[in-house]
Amino acid sequence: MRKIIGARYNFKNINTYANRGMTLEADLKASNDYYLVNDIAVIYKKPTPITISKVNYPSRAEAVIKEGYFKTPSTTDYNGIYKGKYIDFEAKETKLKTSFPLSNIHPHQIKHLERIYKHGGIGFLIVRFTVINKTFLLPIEILLEFLNENERKSIPLSFFEQNGYIIKDKYNPRVDYLEVLDNVYFGGNL
Amino acid sequence: MRKIIGARYNFKNINTYANRGMTLEADLKASNDYYLVNDIAVIYKKPTPITISKVNYPSRAEAVIKEGYFKTPSTTDYNGIYKGKYIDFEAKETKLKTSFPLSNIHPHQIKHLERIYKHGGIGFLIVRFTVINKTFLLPIEILLEFLNENERKSIPLSFFEQNGYIIKDKYNPRVDYLEVLDNVYFGGNL
Repeated sequence: MRKIIGARYNFKNINTYANRGMTLEADLKASNDYYLVNDIAVIYKKPTPITISKVNYPSRAEAVIKEGYFKTPSTTDYNGIYKGKYIDFEAKETKLKTSFPLSNIHPHQIKHLERIYKHGGIGFLIVRFTVINKTFLLPIEILLEFLNENERKSIPLSFFEQNGYIIKDKYNPRVDYLEVLDNVYFGGNL
Repeated sequence: MRKIIGARYNFKNINTYANRGMTLEADLKASNDYYLVNDIAVIYKKPTPITISKVNYPSRAEAVIKEGYFKTPSTTDYNGIYKGKYIDFEAKETKLKTSFPLSNIHPHQIKHLERIYKHGGIGFLIVRFTVINKTFLLPIEILLEFLNENERKSIPLSFFEQNGYIIKDKYNPRVDYLEVLDNVYFGGNL
């Protein structure tokens, strides 16, 4: 269950076409901090799951991990609460221009989001196409329909444009995905 | 923000007085697995937060962490969804017989649970007194009242007995805390 250390840690992977040159992860962290400080929502990124195999204790007050491995996550990266509802999502960037490869999402992450949906929560993907600098929110119930009706190994950009919701660029919060949820799930006006 | 590696990793800390000699963490894992497999709830323990400072790549397919440190968690260990409600809790054991030291819970974890409560979620502590083998669920709103009215640095066992809810030992799930939530929050019958 080890995985390759991937784009998640690659903070050098700056997209010069994006308006601010920030990764989606950094934008989401700033947005979640904004939601928290302004008492709008309580949503965190989960820590990266690691198997620790060696720990040293150079002093009583400190433990140093000397060997560990990245594990495949059982769930998604983000969850929390907004307006009393359970929120759960996975966020991914792609450099491709016309489609998002489904290999970026583990099948058990999709299964997890399906469970969340069935238990009354709000589950979705946030996908950023970095080259065109467009960020979409795709509800899990729409992704499940796509997977039911298609044998494709990627989701075309056009599918996001037609069935997903664009998350507008803002100054603060940078990735205001809760505004999309307001419109889609909480009866807000577009 | 480094912390001492603590009881969380001490699986040798087996309480011979407990009916099954399992740690609370192991009991909760088995219970959450039971809830998941039986489609009752989707509740996970979050990974331990770690700061990674060195990673080796012995092969393209594998990354080995060579240096890392434990971080103080920002939130609680457990969260998820049950009957459409957001669930969030911290679980602790104590070997003391008559009180639970508040030093076992970080102030920002209490603040986090308070936020969850205010946003419409269900937040609580699960505390096991290992020597007498009693496990209690204490809702955050009751803990906050206690903290408002007391300057004490520990919560007496008698407070748990009078204001908390005992979680009965069972075969499966071992720590059926959702049964308590049914009674307290979902209008079930005791």
